Amino acid sequence: MREVAVIGAGITAFGELWDTSFRDMCAEAGVKALEDANVVGEQIDAMFVGSMSAGRFIGQEHVGALVADYVGLGGDLHVPATRVEAACASGGLAFRQAVAAVASGMSDIVVAAGVEKMTDVADATDVLAGAADREWESFAGATFPGLYAMIACDYMNKYGLTREQLAQVAVKNHYHGARNPYAQFRSEITQSTVLKSTLVASPLRLFDCSPVSDGAAAVIVCPLDRAKEFTDTPIKVLASAQAGDTIALHDRPDFSTMGATVAAGNSAFKQAKLERKAVNFVEVHDCFTIAELCAIEDLGFVQKGTAGKFTEEGQTQIGGKLPVNTSGGLKSCGHPVGATGIKQVWEAVQQLRGEAGKRQVDGAEIGMTQNVGGTGATVVSHIFGRV
Amino acid sequence: MREVAVIGAGITAFGELWDTSFRDMCAEAGVKALEDANVVGEQIDAMFVGSMSAGRFIGQEHVGALVADYVGLGGDLHVPATRVEAACASGGLAFRQAVAAVASGMSDIVVAAGVEKMTDVADATDVLAGAADREWESFAGATFPGLYAMIACDYMNKYGLTREQLAQVAVKNHYHGARNPYAQFRSEITQSTVLKSTLVASPLRLFDCSPVSDGAAAVIVCPLDRAKEFTDTPIKVLASAQAGDTIALHDRPDFSTMGATVAAGNSAFKQAKLERKAVNFVEVHDCFTIAELCAIEDLGFVQKGTAGKFTEEGQTQIGGKLPVNTSGGLKSCGHPVGATGIKQVWEAVQQLRGEAGKRQVDGAEIGMTQNVGGTGATVVSHIFGRV
Repeated sequence: MREVAVIGAGITAFGELWDTSFRDMCAEAGVKALEDANVVGEQIDAMFVGSMSAGRFIGQEHVGALVADYVGLGGDLHVPATRVEAACASGGLAFRQAVAAVASGMSDIVVAAGVEKMTDVADATDVLAGAADREWESFAGATFPGLYAMIACDYMNKYGLTREQLAQVAVKNHYHGARNPYAQFRSEITQSTVLKSTLVASPLRLFDCSPVSDGAAAVIVCPLDRAKEFTDTPIKVLASAQAGDTIALHDRPDFSTMGATVAAGNSAFKQAKLERKAVNFVEVHDCFTIAELCAIEDLGFVQKGTAGKFTEEGQTQIGGKLPVNTSGGLKSCGHPVGATGIKQVWEAVQQLRGEAGKRQVDGAEIGMTQNVGGTGATVVSHIFGRV
Repeated sequence: MREVAVIGAGITAFGELWDTSFRDMCAEAGVKALEDANVVGEQIDAMFVGSMSAGRFIGQEHVGALVADYVGLGGDLHVPATRVEAACASGGLAFRQAVAAVASGMSDIVVAAGVEKMTDVADATDVLAGAADREWESFAGATFPGLYAMIACDYMNKYGLTREQLAQVAVKNHYHGARNPYAQFRSEITQSTVLKSTLVASPLRLFDCSPVSDGAAAVIVCPLDRAKEFTDTPIKVLASAQAGDTIALHDRPDFSTMGATVAAGNSAFKQAKLERKAVNFVEVHDCFTIAELCAIEDLGFVQKGTAGKFTEEGQTQIGGKLPVNTSGGLKSCGHPVGATGIKQVWEAVQQLRGEAGKRQVDGAEIGMTQNVGGTGATVVSHIFGRV
C-alpha cells in the first residue's frame, strides 16, 4: 500500500452565500486547491466529492460529474468523478476514497472535495433528518437537535456535566472561529450568550447547535514519494480509519459513547503507531456541543465523563493541553454538511504547515480529524503529520 | 496492487415490489450474496452501497450505514459502510470502490451492493432528471427520454439507422429477459410491440425505454489469492475503469458518441491486456434502446454506425457473435437505478460460472460490463474472467 500525502488545500468562506451557487463554490475551492498544489487539470487522475443531500437541497444528484465538469475536468479530460455520501461524514469519506485510490495505485493525483448548499431551502431540518433512521426516528419527530439532546441528557445524568461546562464548548469554538477568516461566525461569545439563547431541545440551546451553512472545500492528494515535486510542505496521511454503527440511536447500548468513534479512533492510532499524547490538535465533529465532549473521550484523549471539566479548564483552547477545533469547529466555522470533513483536513494542513495565523498551535507536528454521520452511524478519522 | 475476485452474488426480483421496503430488499440481496460466498458477517471488512436518489425516493440519506445496519453489520461489528452515487452508474461505482478497497490492502472481504426503491413516488422522472444538469437541462424541460431522443435523432440522421433496427434492441432484450427469473418483464415481444407502443419522445417509444423499478443486488469481493477459501468458482476482476464527461449533453462534441465510454473501455482493455474479440458477452447500459447501440460501438466491438445492422442480424442475441445484455438489460430486467451496476456484475458472475440457465452463453470465459450515469457524464466498466 503506497503512502499518501496532501499537497494542496482550498476553501470558500462558510456562511449564507446567497450570491454563490453550488457549482460556483466548488469551482472556487477546487481552483484554490489546484493552485495551492501547483497542479493543473491535466495532471488530475480522479476526483471524489462529498455531498450529503444535493438531491433535496438543490434538486441535483450526480454531483461528482457536475463538479468535475465545472472545474474543467469533465469534457476533454474525462476525469472520473465519484460522489460519496454518509450524511455529515460525506466529506471525510470523500477524502478516505481519495486516499484509497492513491494507496491502491489506481490513481496518482486525486482531488477530494466537499460541498453543500443548504440555505436555499426552507426545510433544512427535515432534509438533515434523512441522516437518521427515517422510518424509526425522523417519522416519529426525532430530528437531530432532539437526538443529540437525548445524548446530552444521558451524559449529564451519568457524569454530572454542568450546563456551564457544556456552554464552554461553544465559547471556546467561537474564540477559535473569531481567528479563522473563513468562519461563518467570527465573533467571540460568553457563557451567558449560550445560556440565554433560545431553547431548541432541552438541554440544548441555539448556541449549542451548529448552523445551516453553504460552503465548499477541496484538497489534493498524491503518493508521498512524489509530494515534493509539488510542494515544500507536504502533509503525510498517517492513518485513515472508518467505522459504522446502528443508524438509530435507540439501538445503541450507551447513548453517551459513540462506538464508531471508539472503533475508528483505535484503528487510526494503530495504523499510525502513535500514542494519544503525540497528537497536538484535533478537529472533531461538534454538530452540537455535547458531541465534542463525547468525541474527545471516545477518541481516548481524556477519561469518559471528564471532558466537561477538561474544557472548563481551558485545555481544549489554543494554548491548552489539546486544542480542539481550532477552525472554530462546526459551531463557529459553520457546517455545510458535505464540506465539513474536507474543512477538517484543510485545517489540519494549515496547522501542520504553520500557516494558521492567529489560531496557530505552536509546534504542531501531528493532527487528527473525526467526522461523524448522523448520531454516529458513520465515523471517519484521519491522522496527519509533517514530513 | 492486489488482484481481486468476486466470490458471491445475490439479487432480488426486479419490479414493482409494493410489499418490500428499501431495507428489506437490501437484506434479501445481501444475505443471498453472503450465503453464496460462504461468508458470515464477522468476516466482512467494509461495505459500499450504490444508490442514486434515496433522499428523494424515500427521504433517506446515509443509506450505507442503513443497509449495513439492517444486514446486521452495523451495531456490534462496526463495519464501515459508504454510499457512492453517480446517478444510474452508482452501482458500478460501488463495485469499483470495493475493488479499490481490496486492491489497496485497506480491506479484505468487502460487500458491494446496489439498491433503489423508485415506485413509491409519483415524480420519478423529475427525480431522475437530477442526474442531468438541473440548471441547464432539467429546468428547461429536458428529462431523460428527451435527452436520449436527441441522441437517437442525431444517430439516425448520421448513420441511417432504421426505426426497425432500433426496435430490435428491445425485442432481443425481452427475449433474454424472458429467460431471467429475476427480470421485471419476462415476456417476449415483437418489433410490432415496440413500433405500436406510445410515443414518449420522438423517435423513442415506450418499449424503447427502461422502466421504473424496485430492486437490489449485492456481490462480495476479496483478494484473488484468498478466493478459493470461499468458493470453487471465483470470478477474477481483470479490469476496473471509470471516466467522466460534461454533465450536459449539449456540451459534447458528438451526441452519438459517449466519450466516457470510449475512454473507460480503452482503459479497461489496456488493464486486462485483452483484445475486443476475447470478450464473450457484455452487459451494457440500455436505459434507452439507442444507448445500447452507442455502447457496443463506443466500447469498440463494432464500427461506429453499424450496431443497428449487427443487432438486426441477431449477433447481439445469445448464440450471436457478441451476446449483449443476456440479463435482459435495463429494458427487460428492469432498472432500479442504483442496483443496475451491481446486477450487471451479478449477471457476469452467473454467465462465467455457467449458472445462467436458459440464457447461458456457451463457453463464456470473459465478460464485460458498462454502466452509465446520466447521458454519459459517468461511465464505469469492468472486465471479468474465469479463474
